[in-house]
Amino acid sequence: MSGRVSIVGLGPGDEDLVTPQVRAVLAEATDVVGYFPYVARVAERDGLTLHGSDNRVEIDRSQHALQMAAEGKNVVVVSSGDPGVFAMAAAVFEALEAGPAAWLNLRIDVLPGITAMLAASARAGAPLGHDFCAINLSDNLKPWDLIEKRLRLAAEADFAMAFYNPRSKSRPEGFEKTLEILKDACGDDRPVIFARNVSRDDETLKVVPLSQTTADMADMRTMVLVGSSTTRIIKRDQGDIIYTPRSVS
Amino acid sequence: MSGRVSIVGLGPGDEDLVTPQVRAVLAEATDVVGYFPYVARVAERDGLTLHGSDNRVEIDRSQHALQMAAEGKNVVVVSSGDPGVFAMAAAVFEALEAGPAAWLNLRIDVLPGITAMLAASARAGAPLGHDFCAINLSDNLKPWDLIEKRLRLAAEADFAMAFYNPRSKSRPEGFEKTLEILKDACGDDRPVIFARNVSRDDETLKVVPLSQTTADMADMRTMVLVGSSTTRIIKRDQGDIIYTPRSVS
Repeated sequence: MSGRVSIVGLGPGDEDLVTPQVRAVLAEATDVVGYFPYVARVAERDGLTLHGSDNRVEIDRSQHALQMAAEGKNVVVVSSGDPGVFAMAAAVFEALEAGPAAWLNLRIDVLPGITAMLAASARAGAPLGHDFCAINLSDNLKPWDLIEKRLRLAAEADFAMAFYNPRSKSRPEGFEKTLEILKDACGDDRPVIFARNVSRDDETLKVVPLSQTTADMADMRTMVLVGSSTTRIIKRDQGDIIYTPRSVS
Repeated sequence: MSGRVSIVGLGPGDEDLVTPQVRAVLAEATDVVGYFPYVARVAERDGLTLHGSDNRVEIDRSQHALQMAAEGKNVVVVSSGDPGVFAMAAAVFEALEAGPAAWLNLRIDVLPGITAMLAASARAGAPLGHDFCAINLSDNLKPWDLIEKRLRLAAEADFAMAFYNPRSKSRPEGFEKTLEILKDACGDDRPVIFARNVSRDDETLKVVPLSQTTADMADMRTMVLVGSSTTRIIKRDQGDIIYTPRSVS
């Protein structure tokens, strides 16, 4: 029997956002690997081994998954959100490319999930309803200069923006610089959405005009969305709606 | 009883990509509105009225949904993919903002779905594994100059790119111009992915070096993904994998 690796997205947290496709693959897995809190979302059962690991060991974890598959296991690599958006799919392919040639014969599937920016966008209304970009603000794996360049060009292009990993304890200054760049480049008071733990019981959603944003409004569990110049707010007693119209005129 | 509107995403086509959250809302709906082929994906049952309508009548459809909700109905507006990405959520909010004040008291929810770019990305590997942008190439609702500006800035920012609505019969020249701009701005031979009817039985996936792309490779049912300068191809007998590493170095 030949093994396989499925790289799946569990969505942002609400179990009702996990696709039936992902559920079906999890039901047949022999081994599940991933970051501890995501593996903890998979129910234990006979015949299934859960392999939780720490953050920042994505390549080790990927090698482990591929090695187990090479030994005939049915391995599922779990990510939060979508596995192809700043998550495990790219890491597994990096490990695959650097690994033994035999791994190239493995069956490898990527199964999409609801990524955090779309869950956050849905909660707020439709801030990404027009052209937008997604930027990982972590500078662990890319130079800060490149992030800054992308922020300035994204503002010039008038994209709505979605920021993943906005702020960690170890490098809190990045998000502060991000807000400075945006205040300088965007000028006007466009809405910024801070969606923390979106779709979970302790979800919070804050909408703040850009000029009033401060870096401490985000942490690593916050998805940050920034409107384009055309993004609008519909004021309502039961919660404002933020949306970007389809038309620019 | 007060009515409500749920604006939901049915995903790209595979029924196993519809979230349980969306299934639950559909099960309780009294009325479903949307573009004919999307409404056709909802099973008929007693107590449910299906209201399919033609393309390009998004505002009429939105008004109809809001009006029915104001009359106490439990209305679901269906989109393909995710409702917040070039789909019905923005249209409903445009109609809401322009409509009677009483509509502001309605309960309105947006339920996310698997958007086409993430389904296409998953099929190809992880081409959106690093920073990326999403652009609607239709110039129905925005001037072509703005699309061109965004394409050039996105190339300068070295984003991977996802193009929705690349090419219609009525304006085939837009995608041809898009490819010309990219060939000029990107220079090197980055991979372009043409994913047609992704996740459906008749899905096709083609990967073509940018220099060899031609406009007739896409139609309105094609999702086009363009790699960044760091996007890589892993050659395999059982199908190549396209992915963008997490690191730029």
